[in-house]
Amino acid sequence: MQLIIRGALKEEISVMTKSSPVDLVTETDQKVENFIISLIKEKYPSHSFIGEESVAAGEGSILTDNPTWIIDPIDGTTNFVHRFPFVAVSIGFVVNKKIEFGIVHSCIEDKMYTARKGKGAFCNGQKLQVSGQEDITKSLLVTELGSNRDPEAIKIILSNMERLLSIPIHGIRAVGTAAVNMCLVATGGADAYYEMGIHCWDMAGAGIIITEAGGVLLDVTGGPFDLMSRRIIAASSRAIGERIAKALQLRKDYVYNHVNPFI
Amino acid sequence: MQLIIRGALKEEISVMTKSSPVDLVTETDQKVENFIISLIKEKYPSHSFIGEESVAAGEGSILTDNPTWIIDPIDGTTNFVHRFPFVAVSIGFVVNKKIEFGIVHSCIEDKMYTARKGKGAFCNGQKLQVSGQEDITKSLLVTELGSNRDPEAIKIILSNMERLLSIPIHGIRAVGTAAVNMCLVATGGADAYYEMGIHCWDMAGAGIIITEAGGVLLDVTGGPFDLMSRRIIAASSRAIGERIAKALQLRKDYVYNHVNPFI
Repeated sequence: MQLIIRGALKEEISVMTKSSPVDLVTETDQKVENFIISLIKEKYPSHSFIGEESVAAGEGSILTDNPTWIIDPIDGTTNFVHRFPFVAVSIGFVVNKKIEFGIVHSCIEDKMYTARKGKGAFCNGQKLQVSGQEDITKSLLVTELGSNRDPEAIKIILSNMERLLSIPIHGIRAVGTAAVNMCLVATGGADAYYEMGIHCWDMAGAGIIITEAGGVLLDVTGGPFDLMSRRIIAASSRAIGERIAKALQLRKDYVYNHVNPFI
Repeated sequence: MQLIIRGALKEEISVMTKSSPVDLVTETDQKVENFIISLIKEKYPSHSFIGEESVAAGEGSILTDNPTWIIDPIDGTTNFVHRFPFVAVSIGFVVNKKIEFGIVHSCIEDKMYTARKGKGAFCNGQKLQVSGQEDITKSLLVTELGSNRDPEAIKIILSNMERLLSIPIHGIRAVGTAAVNMCLVATGGADAYYEMGIHCWDMAGAGIIITEAGGVLLDVTGGPFDLMSRRIIAASSRAIGERIAKALQLRKDYVYNHVNPFI
């Protein structure tokens, strides 16, 4: 995968758009996803797959109890197009709707994050531990501005930043990929990540990396996390997570929709 | 320097605050600055110095025509405190108020950015070139939310993001250090950086790295850049820079003050 992605970075990148003029996709996204799925299918023909590009191409995206591989071939496609140096391949393996293991490879940094249920989280073999920070006023957060350019969505995203900065907190960072942002929380480098509007393929790989590093996953309401809800708070402690939930205004465009969570 | 900074990252970091509860400083900032200044002073006793921590400690900060070393010992102190992996040592050498050369060392990534007037810009020896992007709707920007928690300042920072996102642009990133953000523009990874409220030590090293990589420096009004103005647009092209200037609302707290630019 790294060879495909790094190779493509050296050439002209042909860009297409998806949901909005700034929601980008490239041939490399599709190539990497097909490569991963075909490799796994050979070995596990009965398993299910939810991949960002397969869903974009019209394939189903309902999570069942069947062993399911949830794949984002390039998390941070806008970064990839710009050669902004944070681009990740994210794979989560889910059985009975629970994440069993996760892999996030930040290709350009060459950092391989891995976690397996009950076995801890690692980066290039080194054990990860969240900061454990409980005091929001001493916290550094990560989030993204997203690719939705609807004026109402932008207003809520920025108003949430305003509510958090005013607490005050130490700061907010955004490196442009949900998976790498979450892995930075797992390393202890940031204290929490939150976002609305992302997909299960952005969260499945890094979700278990956070929990195995001692962190917690919550819904943006502070309630239980749901991988298919398109919303997440991934925090170094429940206290920080709940304080963020208290500050956040919900986006109407991403109120949870069980019938069609991929709208 | 890298040894001092990396060594400190392995130990307990004792944190003090400066202008606000989220404007942080550590003993390592002071240690690195003293180390750099004493090394240079030995060789060039007649040269002047403007260093972030010396100014914070009450030393003068007026730029004269005398050869002057402008030093930020740790650009990204909040990152350093959190071990968020972007922390830079920045040094700019200025004669007759013009930057002659600059060095930015992103210590944790171990990327050494350098540039000398008329001789090009490099990262670990590899020549840098800005993207040259002229179309704002295809641009990726970098900026920061800063450490000012005055409600009016926060409102303007976020309103400027809203104006830019609505153009629309591809996105905004923030890695937490002005110097590294600017170097990312020099690599072509981002198309422009803008900020109000930063200091000459955040800009002097990376400023010449941007121009030697083919980029331009402008004031946030679109007029000529002034190193002592606490405001910058560093862009891959004049077109992008001027379009950003057109979108930005100025912060009253950072309207240029010739008499005391360090307020």
